[in-house]
Amino acid sequence: MTSGIMTEIPETHPRRDSLILRERLVEGFKGGIVAPQGLIAHGRGEAMYYLLGERTTKEARIAARAAAAALLRSERPVISVNGNVAALASREVIALAKTVGARIEINLFHRSDERVSKIQAVLESNGATEVVGFFPDESIPGLEGMRGRCSSEGVHSADVVLVALEDGDRTEALTRMGKKVVAIDLNPMSRTARTADVTVVDEVTKAFPLISGYAEEMLGDEDALDNALVKYDRAENLGAVMKTIASNLGLGD
Amino acid sequence: MTSGIMTEIPETHPRRDSLILRERLVEGFKGGIVAPQGLIAHGRGEAMYYLLGERTTKEARIAARAAAAALLRSERPVISVNGNVAALASREVIALAKTVGARIEINLFHRSDERVSKIQAVLESNGATEVVGFFPDESIPGLEGMRGRCSSEGVHSADVVLVALEDGDRTEALTRMGKKVVAIDLNPMSRTARTADVTVVDEVTKAFPLISGYAEEMLGDEDALDNALVKYDRAENLGAVMKTIASNLGLGD
Repeated sequence: MTSGIMTEIPETHPRRDSLILRERLVEGFKGGIVAPQGLIAHGRGEAMYYLLGERTTKEARIAARAAAAALLRSERPVISVNGNVAALASREVIALAKTVGARIEINLFHRSDERVSKIQAVLESNGATEVVGFFPDESIPGLEGMRGRCSSEGVHSADVVLVALEDGDRTEALTRMGKKVVAIDLNPMSRTARTADVTVVDEVTKAFPLISGYAEEMLGDEDALDNALVKYDRAENLGAVMKTIASNLGLGD
Repeated sequence: MTSGIMTEIPETHPRRDSLILRERLVEGFKGGIVAPQGLIAHGRGEAMYYLLGERTTKEARIAARAAAAALLRSERPVISVNGNVAALASREVIALAKTVGARIEINLFHRSDERVSKIQAVLESNGATEVVGFFPDESIPGLEGMRGRCSSEGVHSADVVLVALEDGDRTEALTRMGKKVVAIDLNPMSRTARTADVTVVDEVTKAFPLISGYAEEMLGDEDALDNALVKYDRAENLGAVMKTIASNLGLGD
Protein backbone atom coordinates (compact mmCIF):
# COMPACT_ATOMS: atom_id res chain seq x y z
CA MET A 1 0.00 0.00 0.00
CA THR A 2 2.70 2.49 0.94
CA SER A 3 4.92 1.64 -2.02
CA GLY A 4 2.32 2.98 -4.48
CA ILE A 5 2.22 6.26 -2.59
CA MET A 6 6.00 6.53 -2.34
CA THR A 7 6.41 6.36 -6.09
CA GLU A 8 3.77 9.02 -6.78
CA ILE A 9 5.03 11.71 -4.39
CA PRO A 10 8.48 13.01 -5.38
CA GLU A 11 11.25 12.61 -2.74
CA THR A 12 11.88 16.33 -2.98
CA HIS A 13 8.29 17.52 -2.46
CA PRO A 14 8.36 20.04 0.42
CA ARG A 15 5.15 18.65 1.99
CA ARG A 16 6.01 14.97 1.33
CA ASP A 17 5.47 13.62 4.88
CA SER A 18 2.14 15.37 5.14
CA LEU A 19 1.01 14.03 1.76
CA ILE A 20 2.03 10.48 2.70
CA LEU A 21 -0.04 10.66 5.89
CA ARG A 22 -2.96 12.06 3.93
CA GLU A 23 -2.80 9.24 1.40
CA ARG A 24 -2.52 6.68 4.20
CA LEU A 25 -5.72 8.08 5.70
CA VAL A 26 -7.53 8.01 2.35
CA GLU A 27 -6.44 4.36 2.03
CA GLY A 28 -7.88 3.72 5.50
CA PHE A 29 -11.07 5.42 4.42
CA LYS A 30 -11.32 3.28 1.29
CA GLY A 31 -10.66 0.21 3.45
CA GLY A 32 -13.57 1.11 5.73
CA ILE A 33 -11.61 1.92 8.90
CA VAL A 34 -11.81 5.72 8.65
CA ALA A 35 -15.15 7.61 8.69
CA PRO A 36 -15.80 10.56 6.31
CA GLN A 37 -15.82 12.82 9.38
CA GLY A 38 -12.38 11.39 10.19
CA LEU A 39 -11.05 12.81 6.92
CA ILE A 40 -12.29 16.28 7.88
CA ALA A 41 -10.79 15.92 11.35
CA HIS A 42 -7.47 14.97 9.76
CA GLY A 43 -7.56 18.14 7.71
CA ARG A 44 -7.99 20.20 10.88
CA GLY A 45 -4.96 18.41 12.31
CA GLU A 46 -2.97 19.07 9.13
CA ALA A 47 -3.61 22.80 9.44
CA MET A 48 -2.56 22.88 13.09
CA TYR A 49 0.55 20.82 12.36
CA TYR A 50 1.40 23.15 9.49
CA LEU A 51 1.13 26.11 11.89
CA LEU A 52 3.41 24.26 14.31
CA GLY A 53 6.03 24.08 11.57
CA GLU A 54 5.45 20.33 11.01
CA ARG A 55 8.03 19.40 13.61
CA THR A 56 8.21 18.06 17.16
CA THR A 57 8.52 20.99 19.55
CA LYS A 58 10.46 21.10 22.79
CA GLU A 59 7.09 21.24 24.59
CA ALA A 60 5.99 18.02 22.88
CA ARG A 61 9.15 16.31 24.20
CA ILE A 62 8.51 17.47 27.76
CA ALA A 63 4.89 16.32 27.55
CA ALA A 64 5.84 12.99 25.96
CA ARG A 65 8.26 12.32 28.81
CA ALA A 66 5.48 13.01 31.34
CA ALA A 67 3.10 10.83 29.31
CA ALA A 68 5.61 7.96 29.40
CA ALA A 69 6.02 8.38 33.17
CA ALA A 70 2.23 8.38 33.73
CA LEU A 71 1.85 5.20 31.70
CA LEU A 72 4.76 3.46 33.47
CA ARG A 73 3.33 4.40 36.88
CA SER A 74 -0.10 3.09 35.91
CA GLU A 75 -1.46 -0.20 37.25
CA ARG A 76 -3.90 -0.67 34.38
CA PRO A 77 -3.03 1.53 31.39
CA VAL A 78 -5.26 1.46 28.32
CA ILE A 79 -4.61 3.02 24.90
CA SER A 80 -7.85 4.06 23.21
CA VAL A 81 -7.73 3.80 19.42
CA ASN A 82 -10.11 5.19 16.79
CA GLY A 83 -10.19 4.84 13.00
CA ASN A 84 -7.77 7.66 12.22
CA VAL A 85 -5.20 6.45 14.75
CA ALA A 86 -5.44 2.89 13.43
CA ALA A 87 -5.01 4.08 9.84
CA LEU A 88 -2.04 6.29 10.64
CA ALA A 89 -0.15 4.63 13.48
CA SER A 90 -1.18 1.03 14.22
CA ARG A 91 2.39 -0.20 14.56
CA GLU A 92 3.40 2.73 16.73
CA VAL A 93 0.41 2.16 19.04
CA ILE A 94 1.24 -1.52 19.41
CA ALA A 95 4.90 -0.79 20.17
CA LEU A 96 3.90 1.61 22.96
CA ALA A 97 1.33 -0.85 24.34
CA LYS A 98 4.07 -3.50 24.58
CA THR A 99 6.59 -1.14 26.18
CA VAL A 100 4.26 0.06 28.95
CA GLY A 101 2.13 -3.08 29.25
CA ALA A 102 -1.10 -1.41 28.13
CA ARG A 103 -4.24 -2.91 26.67
CA ILE A 104 -5.64 -1.45 23.47
CA GLU A 105 -9.34 -0.59 23.26
CA ILE A 106 -11.09 0.40 20.05
CA ASN A 107 -13.48 3.30 20.68
CA LEU A 108 -15.22 4.96 17.76
CA PHE A 109 -17.10 8.23 17.68
CA HIS A 110 -19.14 7.00 14.71
CA ARG A 111 -19.30 3.37 15.78
CA SER A 112 -20.30 0.38 13.68
CA ASP A 113 -19.48 -3.25 14.44
CA GLU A 114 -18.08 -3.58 10.93
CA ARG A 115 -15.63 -0.74 11.42
CA VAL A 116 -14.56 -2.05 14.85
CA SER A 117 -13.88 -5.49 13.31
CA LYS A 118 -11.83 -4.01 10.51
CA ILE A 119 -9.75 -1.94 12.91
CA GLN A 120 -9.24 -4.96 15.14
CA ALA A 121 -8.05 -6.94 12.09
CA VAL A 122 -5.58 -4.18 11.17
CA LEU A 123 -4.22 -4.05 14.73
CA GLU A 124 -3.93 -7.85 14.97
CA SER A 125 -2.25 -8.13 11.58
CA ASN A 126 0.33 -5.69 12.93
CA GLY A 127 0.96 -7.87 15.99
CA ALA A 128 -1.50 -6.62 18.64
CA THR A 129 -2.60 -9.30 21.07
CA GLU A 130 -4.82 -7.69 23.72
CA VAL A 131 -7.42 -5.66 21.82
CA VAL A 132 -10.81 -5.01 23.42
CA GLY A 133 -13.78 -2.90 22.38
CA PHE A 134 -15.80 -5.18 20.15
CA PHE A 135 -18.22 -6.00 23.01
CA PRO A 136 -18.57 -2.79 25.00
CA ASP A 137 -20.26 -4.05 28.19
CA GLU A 138 -19.87 -0.89 30.29
CA SER A 139 -20.53 2.80 29.93
CA ILE A 140 -18.91 6.14 30.65
CA PRO A 141 -21.31 8.27 32.73
CA GLY A 142 -22.50 11.45 31.02
CA LEU A 143 -22.10 10.30 27.42
CA GLU A 144 -25.17 9.31 25.46
CA GLY A 145 -25.68 6.29 23.22
CA MET A 146 -22.90 4.30 21.60
CA ARG A 147 -20.43 7.14 22.19
CA GLY A 148 -20.50 6.35 25.89
CA ARG A 149 -19.92 2.61 25.61
CA CYS A 150 -16.65 1.04 26.73
CA SER A 151 -15.23 -2.30 27.89
CA SER A 152 -15.06 -3.55 31.47
CA GLU A 153 -11.57 -5.00 30.86
CA GLY A 154 -10.46 -1.88 29.05
CA VAL A 155 -11.19 1.80 29.65
CA HIS A 156 -13.75 1.14 32.40
CA SER A 157 -11.25 -0.48 34.80
CA ALA A 158 -8.21 1.53 33.66
CA ASP A 159 -6.45 4.04 35.90
CA VAL A 160 -4.63 5.78 33.02
CA VAL A 161 -6.17 6.14 29.55
CA LEU A 162 -4.21 7.39 26.55
CA VAL A 163 -6.49 8.99 23.97
CA ALA A 164 -5.35 10.27 20.58
CA LEU A 165 -7.32 12.58 18.27
CA GLU A 166 -10.17 12.31 20.76
CA ASP A 167 -13.50 14.11 21.04
CA GLY A 168 -13.64 16.73 23.82
CA ASP A 169 -16.85 15.37 25.39
CA ARG A 170 -15.27 11.97 25.81
CA THR A 171 -12.05 13.30 27.32
CA GLU A 172 -14.05 15.36 29.82
CA ALA A 173 -16.22 12.37 30.74
CA LEU A 174 -13.13 10.20 31.32
CA THR A 175 -11.58 12.72 33.69
CA ARG A 176 -14.93 13.02 35.54
CA MET A 177 -14.73 9.22 36.05
CA GLY A 178 -11.43 9.82 37.83
CA LYS A 179 -9.23 8.47 35.06
CA LYS A 180 -5.85 10.04 34.51
CA VAL A 181 -5.94 11.01 30.84
CA VAL A 182 -2.94 11.30 28.53
CA ALA A 183 -3.88 12.92 25.21
CA ILE A 184 -2.19 13.25 21.84
CA ASP A 185 -3.77 16.18 19.99
CA LEU A 186 -2.59 18.71 17.41
CA ASN A 187 -4.85 21.54 18.57
CA PRO A 188 -3.50 23.11 21.78
CA MET A 189 -6.83 24.93 22.20
CA SER A 190 -9.11 21.89 21.92
CA ARG A 191 -11.15 20.78 24.91
CA THR A 192 -9.25 17.49 24.89
CA ALA A 193 -5.91 19.33 25.07
CA ARG A 194 -7.18 21.51 27.92
CA THR A 195 -8.86 18.72 29.88
CA ALA A 196 -6.32 15.88 29.77
CA ASP A 197 -3.79 15.52 32.61
CA VAL A 198 -0.94 15.32 30.10
CA THR A 199 -1.31 16.61 26.53
CA VAL A 200 1.26 15.88 23.84
CA VAL A 201 0.77 18.34 20.99
CA ASP A 202 2.32 16.43 18.11
CA GLU A 203 1.37 14.38 15.08
CA VAL A 204 0.44 10.79 16.08
CA THR A 205 3.08 8.96 14.03
CA LYS A 206 5.69 11.09 15.83
CA ALA A 207 4.09 11.19 19.28
CA PHE A 208 3.68 7.45 19.88
CA PRO A 209 7.36 6.57 19.17
CA LEU A 210 8.44 9.59 21.20
CA ILE A 211 6.50 8.36 24.24
CA SER A 212 7.77 4.79 23.67
CA GLY A 213 11.36 6.02 23.52
CA TYR A 214 11.09 7.89 26.81
CA ALA A 215 9.32 4.92 28.42
CA GLU A 216 12.18 2.61 27.43
CA GLU A 217 14.71 5.13 28.67
CA MET A 218 13.04 5.61 32.08
CA LEU A 219 11.92 2.02 32.71
CA GLY A 220 12.72 1.11 36.35
CA ASP A 221 14.21 4.54 37.13
CA GLU A 222 11.80 5.98 39.73
CA ASP A 223 13.71 9.25 40.04
CA ALA A 224 13.46 9.84 36.31
CA LEU A 225 9.69 9.19 36.45
CA ASP A 226 9.24 11.65 39.34
CA ASN A 227 11.30 14.22 37.50
CA ALA A 228 9.37 13.83 34.24
CA LEU A 229 6.04 14.34 36.03
CA VAL A 230 7.26 17.29 38.11
CA LYS A 231 8.70 19.08 35.08
CA TYR A 232 5.41 19.03 33.20
CA ASP A 233 2.78 21.74 33.64
CA ARG A 234 -0.09 21.49 31.19
CA ALA A 235 -1.15 25.15 31.11
CA GLU A 236 2.43 26.35 30.77
CA ASN A 237 3.18 23.74 28.11
CA LEU A 238 0.08 24.55 25.99
CA GLY A 239 0.75 28.27 26.38
CA ALA A 240 4.25 27.79 24.99
CA VAL A 241 2.90 25.76 22.07
CA MET A 242 0.46 28.57 21.24
CA LYS A 243 3.28 31.06 21.37
CA THR A 244 5.21 28.91 18.87
CA ILE A 245 2.25 28.97 16.51
CA ALA A 246 1.76 32.72 16.93
CA SER A 247 5.45 33.26 16.28
CA ASN A 248 5.36 31.06 13.17
CA LEU A 249 2.47 33.20 11.92
CA GLY A 250 4.43 36.38 12.57
CA LEU A 251 7.51 35.06 10.78
CA GLY A 252 5.36 33.94 7.88
CA ASP A 253 4.79 37.51 6.82
CA MET B 1 -31.15 18.03 2.51
CA THR B 2 -30.50 20.96 4.84
CA SER B 3 -33.67 20.43 6.87
CA GLY B 4 -32.44 17.07 8.18
CA ILE B 5 -29.22 18.71 9.34
CA MET B 6 -30.99 21.67 10.93
CA THR B 7 -33.07 19.41 13.15
CA GLU B 8 -30.08 17.38 14.32
CA ILE B 9 -27.80 20.25 15.36
CA PRO B 10 -29.25 22.26 18.28
CA GLU B 11 -29.89 25.97 17.58
CA THR B 12 -27.73 26.82 20.57
CA HIS B 13 -24.67 24.75 19.63
CA PRO B 14 -21.66 27.10 19.72
CA ARG B 15 -20.16 25.63 16.53
CA ARG B 16 -23.51 25.25 14.70
CA ASP B 17 -22.57 27.04 11.46
CA SER B 18 -19.36 25.08 11.19
CA LEU B 19 -21.18 21.79 11.78
CA ILE B 20 -23.82 22.63 9.16
CA LEU B 21 -21.10 23.32 6.56
CA ARG B 22 -19.37 20.07 7.50
CA GLU B 23 -22.58 18.07 7.07
CA ARG B 24 -23.27 19.81 3.76
CA LEU B 25 -19.84 18.72 2.56
CA VAL B 26 -20.35 15.13 3.74
CA GLU B 27 -23.66 15.15 1.81
CA GLY B 28 -21.76 16.38 -1.25
CA PHE B 29 -19.26 13.60 -0.73
CA LYS B 30 -22.02 10.98 -0.50
CA GLY B 31 -23.57 12.47 -3.64
CA GLY B 32 -20.31 12.06 -5.55
CA ILE B 33 -19.43 15.72 -6.04
CA VAL B 34 -16.76 15.98 -3.32
CA ALA B 35 -13.56 13.89 -3.41
CA PRO B 36 -12.18 12.24 -0.22
CA GLN B 37 -9.24 14.67 -0.46
CA GLY B 38 -11.83 17.46 -0.50
CA LEU B 39 -13.01 16.41 2.95
CA ILE B 40 -9.45 16.68 4.28
CA ALA B 41 -9.02 20.06 2.62
CA HIS B 42 -12.25 21.22 4.26
CA GLY B 43 -10.87 20.23 7.65
CA ARG B 44 -7.80 22.40 7.03
CA GLY B 45 -10.13 25.27 6.22
CA GLU B 46 -12.16 24.63 9.38
CA ALA B 47 -9.03 24.94 11.50
CA MET B 48 -7.98 28.19 9.85
CA TYR B 49 -11.49 29.61 10.12
CA TYR B 50 -11.58 28.61 13.78
CA LEU B 51 -8.32 30.49 14.33
CA LEU B 52 -9.81 33.51 12.55
CA GLY B 53 -12.63 33.51 15.09
CA GLU B 54 -15.17 32.17 12.55
CA ARG B 55 -16.13 35.65 11.43
CA THR B 56 -15.59 37.98 8.48
CA THR B 57 -12.66 40.27 9.25
CA LYS B 58 -12.25 43.89 8.21
CA GLU B 59 -9.45 42.70 5.89
CA ALA B 60 -11.83 40.27 4.18
CA ARG B 61 -14.22 43.18 3.49
CA ILE B 62 -11.46 45.31 1.96
CA ALA B 63 -10.32 42.39 -0.20
CA ALA B 64 -13.90 41.50 -1.22
CA ARG B 65 -14.45 45.08 -2.38
CA ALA B 66 -11.27 44.89 -4.50
CA ALA B 67 -12.36 41.47 -5.80
CA ALA B 68 -15.72 42.92 -6.85
CA ALA B 69 -13.98 45.82 -8.61
CA ALA B 70 -11.59 43.49 -10.45
CA LEU B 71 -14.52 41.36 -11.64
CA LEU B 72 -16.56 44.39 -12.74
CA ARG B 73 -13.59 45.81 -14.66
CA SER B 74 -13.01 42.48 -16.39
CA GLU B 75 -13.93 41.91 -20.04
CA ARG B 76 -14.18 38.14 -19.67
CA PRO B 77 -14.46 37.09 -16.04
CA VAL B 78 -14.63 33.37 -15.17
CA ILE B 79 -15.44 31.77 -11.82
CA SER B 80 -13.64 28.44 -11.41
CA VAL B 81 -15.59 25.92 -9.32
CA ASN B 82 -14.46 22.64 -7.76
CA GLY B 83 -16.36 19.96 -5.82
CA ASN B 84 -16.09 21.60 -2.41
CA VAL B 85 -17.24 24.99 -3.70
CA ALA B 86 -20.18 23.39 -5.52
CA ALA B 87 -21.19 21.44 -2.39
CA LEU B 88 -20.96 24.46 -0.10
CA ALA B 89 -21.90 27.48 -2.17
CA SER B 90 -23.51 26.72 -5.55
CA ARG B 91 -26.23 29.34 -5.18
CA GLU B 92 -23.78 31.98 -3.98
CA VAL B 93 -21.46 31.29 -6.95
CA ILE B 94 -24.33 31.59 -9.41
CA ALA B 95 -25.54 34.86 -7.86
CA LEU B 96 -22.05 36.37 -8.22
CA ALA B 97 -21.72 35.09 -11.79
CA LYS B 98 -25.00 36.84 -12.69
CA THR B 99 -24.05 40.09 -10.95
CA VAL B 100 -20.68 40.45 -12.66
CA GLY B 101 -21.53 38.65 -15.92
CA ALA B 102 -19.06 35.82 -15.40
CA ARG B 103 -18.99 32.35 -16.85
CA ILE B 104 -18.61 29.39 -14.53
CA GLU B 105 -16.02 26.71 -15.29
CA ILE B 106 -15.80 23.41 -13.42
CA ASN B 107 -12.15 22.55 -12.72
CA LEU B 108 -11.33 19.56 -10.56
CA PHE B 109 -8.01 18.64 -9.00
CA HIS B 110 -9.06 14.98 -8.94
CA ARG B 111 -11.02 15.04 -12.18
CA SER B 112 -13.48 12.46 -13.44
CA ASP B 113 -16.14 13.01 -16.10
CA GLU B 114 -18.72 11.62 -13.70
CA ARG B 115 -17.91 14.14 -11.00
CA VAL B 116 -17.87 17.03 -13.50
CA SER B 117 -21.34 15.97 -14.74
CA LYS B 118 -22.71 15.77 -11.23
CA ILE B 119 -21.36 19.20 -10.34
CA GLN B 120 -22.76 20.63 -13.56
CA ALA B 121 -26.17 19.15 -12.68
CA VAL B 122 -26.04 20.73 -9.20
CA LEU B 123 -25.12 24.12 -10.66
CA GLU B 124 -27.82 23.94 -13.34
CA SER B 125 -30.49 22.82 -10.88
CA ASN B 126 -29.62 25.95 -8.91
CA GLY B 127 -30.12 28.14 -11.97
CA ALA B 128 -26.69 28.34 -13.63
CA THR B 129 -26.84 28.81 -17.39
CA GLU B 130 -23.29 29.23 -18.71
CA VAL B 131 -21.28 26.37 -17.23
CA VAL B 132 -18.22 25.09 -19.08
CA GLY B 133 -15.55 22.56 -18.20
CA PHE B 134 -17.00 19.24 -19.32
CA PHE B 135 -14.94 19.32 -22.54
CA PRO B 136 -11.61 20.87 -21.58
CA ASP B 137 -10.10 21.62 -25.00
CA GLU B 138 -7.21 23.80 -23.87
CA SER B 139 -4.42 23.63 -21.36
CA ILE B 140 -2.67 25.77 -18.78
CA PRO B 141 1.10 25.78 -19.49
CA GLY B 142 3.21 24.24 -16.75
CA LEU B 143 0.59 21.92 -15.27
CA GLU B 144 0.75 18.24 -16.06
CA GLY B 145 -2.07 15.90 -17.05
CA MET B 146 -5.74 16.51 -16.36
CA ARG B 147 -4.88 19.11 -13.74
CA GLY B 148 -3.74 21.45 -16.49
CA ARG B 149 -6.82 21.13 -18.69
CA CYS B 150 -9.25 24.01 -19.14
CA SER B 151 -11.85 25.31 -21.59
CA SER B 152 -11.21 27.67 -24.49
CA GLU B 153 -14.45 29.55 -23.76
CA GLY B 154 -13.73 29.63 -20.03
CA VAL B 155 -10.48 30.03 -18.12
CA HIS B 156 -8.28 29.95 -21.22
CA SER B 157 -9.73 33.14 -22.75
CA ALA B 158 -10.55 34.87 -19.45
CA ASP B 159 -8.79 38.02 -18.30
CA VAL B 160 -9.88 37.66 -14.65
CA VAL B 161 -10.31 34.26 -12.99
CA LEU B 162 -11.88 33.83 -9.56
CA VAL B 163 -10.63 30.66 -7.85
CA ALA B 164 -11.89 29.38 -4.50
CA LEU B 165 -10.21 26.74 -2.33
CA GLU B 166 -7.68 26.34 -5.14
CA ASP B 167 -4.43 24.41 -5.38
CA GLY B 168 -1.29 26.57 -5.24
CA ASP B 169 0.26 25.11 -8.41
CA ARG B 170 -2.81 26.04 -10.40
CA THR B 171 -3.01 29.57 -9.04
CA GLU B 172 0.66 30.13 -9.90
CA ALA B 173 0.20 28.74 -13.40
CA LEU B 174 -2.79 31.04 -14.01
CA THR B 175 -0.84 34.14 -13.00
CA ARG B 176 2.07 33.02 -15.24
CA MET B 177 -0.45 32.92 -18.11
CA GLY B 178 -1.11 36.61 -17.41
CA LYS B 179 -4.53 36.12 -15.83
CA LYS B 180 -5.56 38.43 -13.04
CA VAL B 181 -6.48 36.01 -10.24
CA VAL B 182 -8.98 36.67 -7.47
CA ALA B 183 -8.80 33.98 -4.76
CA ILE B 184 -11.03 32.97 -1.87
CA ASP B 185 -8.93 31.02 0.62
CA LEU B 186 -8.97 30.48 4.39
CA ASN B 187 -5.21 30.09 4.77
CA PRO B 188 -3.45 33.47 4.53
CA MET B 189 -0.12 31.65 4.18
CA SER B 190 -1.08 29.35 1.31
CA ARG B 191 0.62 29.72 -2.05
CA THR B 192 -2.74 30.59 -3.57
CA ALA B 193 -3.26 33.39 -1.02
CA ARG B 194 0.23 34.74 -1.67
CA THR B 195 0.10 34.43 -5.46
CA ALA B 196 -3.35 35.77 -6.36
CA ASP B 197 -3.76 39.43 -7.24
CA VAL B 198 -6.61 39.78 -4.75
CA THR B 199 -7.10 37.28 -1.91
CA VAL B 200 -10.25 37.21 0.20
CA VAL B 201 -9.51 35.28 3.41
CA ASP B 202 -13.00 34.14 4.38
CA GLU B 203 -15.24 31.11 4.34
CA VAL B 204 -16.79 30.58 0.85
CA THR B 205 -20.45 30.82 1.83
CA LYS B 206 -19.65 34.23 3.34
CA ALA B 207 -17.14 35.44 0.74
CA PHE B 208 -19.24 35.00 -2.41
CA PRO B 209 -22.23 37.05 -1.12
CA LEU B 210 -19.83 39.65 0.25
CA ILE B 211 -18.24 40.12 -3.18
CA SER B 212 -21.70 40.12 -4.84
CA GLY B 213 -22.94 42.78 -2.43
CA TYR B 214 -20.01 45.09 -3.15
CA ALA B 215 -20.36 44.47 -6.90
CA GLU B 216 -24.03 45.52 -6.79
CA GLU B 217 -23.14 48.56 -4.72
CA MET B 218 -20.34 49.73 -7.05
CA LEU B 219 -21.93 48.82 -10.40
CA GLY B 220 -21.39 51.71 -12.84
CA ASP B 221 -19.48 53.83 -10.30
CA GLU B 222 -15.99 54.05 -11.80
CA ASP B 223 -14.62 56.14 -8.92
CA ALA B 224 -15.74 53.52 -6.41
CA LEU B 225 -14.02 50.82 -8.48
CA ASP B 226 -10.76 52.81 -8.62
CA ASN B 227 -10.95 53.44 -4.92
CA ALA B 228 -11.60 49.78 -4.05
CA LEU B 229 -8.57 48.68 -6.09
CA VAL B 230 -6.27 51.39 -4.74
CA LYS B 231 -7.18 50.65 -1.13
CA TYR B 232 -6.21 46.99 -1.39
CA ASP B 233 -2.65 45.81 -0.81
CA ARG B 234 -2.31 42.04 -0.72
CA ALA B 235 0.81 41.78 1.47
CA GLU B 236 -0.53 44.29 3.96
CA ASN B 237 -3.96 42.64 3.99
CA LEU B 238 -2.58 39.11 4.54
CA GLY B 239 -0.19 40.40 7.19
CA ALA B 240 -3.11 41.92 9.09
CA VAL B 241 -5.07 38.65 8.83
CA MET B 242 -2.10 36.75 10.28
CA LYS B 243 -1.88 39.24 13.12
CA THR B 244 -5.56 38.59 13.87
CA ILE B 245 -4.90 34.85 14.07
CA ALA B 246 -1.82 35.35 16.23
CA SER B 247 -3.78 37.62 18.54
CA ASN B 248 -6.63 35.08 18.77
CA LEU B 249 -4.04 32.47 19.78
CA GLY B 250 -2.61 34.75 22.43
CA LEU B 251 -6.04 35.49 23.88
CA GLY B 252 -6.86 31.79 23.87
CA ASP B 253 -4.48 31.13 26.73
